Amino acid sequence: MNNSKSQVAGPSKIRWLINKTSEDWIDLAISNPMEILLDHAHCERKAAGVALQLMFRYVSEPGLSEVLSPLAREELEHFERVLSILNARGQKLQKLASPPYGLTLAKNICKDEPLRMLDSFLVAGLIEARSHERMKLLSIHSPDVELRDLYADLLKSEARHFGIYWKLADERFERNLLTSRLEELAKVESDALLEMHHQPRMHS
Amino acid sequence: MNNSKSQVAGPSKIRWLINKTSEDWIDLAISNPMEILLDHAHCERKAAGVALQLMFRYVSEPGLSEVLSPLAREELEHFERVLSILNARGQKLQKLASPPYGLTLAKNICKDEPLRMLDSFLVAGLIEARSHERMKLLSIHSPDVELRDLYADLLKSEARHFGIYWKLADERFERNLLTSRLEELAKVESDALLEMHHQPRMHS
Ligand SMILES: [Fe+2]
Ligand SMILES: [Fe+2]
Ligand SMILES: [Fe+2]
Ligand SMILES: [Fe+2]
Repeated sequence: MNNSKSQVAGPSKIRWLINKTSEDWIDLAISNPMEILLDHAHCERKAAGVALQLMFRYVSEPGLSEVLSPLAREELEHFERVLSILNARGQKLQKLASPPYGLTLAKNICKDEPLRMLDSFLVAGLIEARSHERMKLLSIHSPDVELRDLYADLLKSEARHFGIYWKLADERFERNLLTSRLEELAKVESDALLEMHHQPRMHS
Repeated sequence: MNNSKSQVAGPSKIRWLINKTSEDWIDLAISNPMEILLDHAHCERKAAGVALQLMFRYVSEPGLSEVLSPLAREELEHFERVLSILNARGQKLQKLASPPYGLTLAKNICKDEPLRMLDSFLVAGLIEARSHERMKLLSIHSPDVELRDLYADLLKSEARHFGIYWKLADERFERNLLTSRLEELAKVESDALLEMHHQPRMHS
């Protein structure tokens, strides 16, 4: 960690994810493509919701809505694309029990400003980074060519998205604070995935 | 009212707005273009928020996300367009005290399902209809050509938007229930604007 921390210079060199996704997750995911796809639809919807929530909470923050509004639109486009595949395959958009991942991360967001803002950006970035990692795996390992193509397309945006959250944080907070807080939250993120939840989900 | 009610057949013949906007409002609005523009930015942001909130609340409702997600994206595009004009004119996106309009309408939404869903669609449609009416007025009376063009462009979408909310309601509820409830809520909407709030706002 110390070594990678000393080298950080931009989002591409930041170590967002401490642990790689396990082979077990990949096996579970590719054996349950429709459940993963349905969960993915919800992830895109929620990603749009997070961006909008931050726009609402920090409505007067200069330069924030300018990047989060297009990001929210893009997540909604992703949502609609996944939804159309679900519909084409006869799968309704129905509720799905969420793994504890999102809630665990949310609980670790500092309650007081300005750290709440920093943590919110970092948690959103971590979720984007994990989504990116897992979509990449699905784009390689999924036996279904339509799904491989879908994930390959979408993951390009997700890489940009964690860059956006990094930049929002980096423009507003000291680099040392940012990297040490990222290290802490990245640990929470990876730990939340260590215990396998036996449900096929994007973030199980 | 009875006469117009008996003739309803589609959104274009529905009487959403009971009272026309007063000349006083027009005078106040065109005398305070920047404040109206700033308030308008917030209206677009909130319109996206309403669509997303309904998508989240009724996540398993067939055919709902399919229309509300593109609508939310469009409102965000409007928001970004207004925001770029604000930025170009040196006006920051800052909070603005809201008139009681939105809260008054929200309070009149039935607390229990399924009427809560019906009322939510109708209230969203009423706000779209009023926005449409007022943007039309601004597109005619604003002395600023850039703003006239802006409002003329945006109002085309708003007409479509109240049609979308009408259709969402009409697909799910009895026509008689729908029209009688619309009549009640339209009365609330118009009454909320009768008392002039002396602030230049899209819905004062
Ligand atoms: Fe996405
Ligand atoms: Fe994303
Ligand atoms: Fe709009
Ligand atoms: Fe609208």
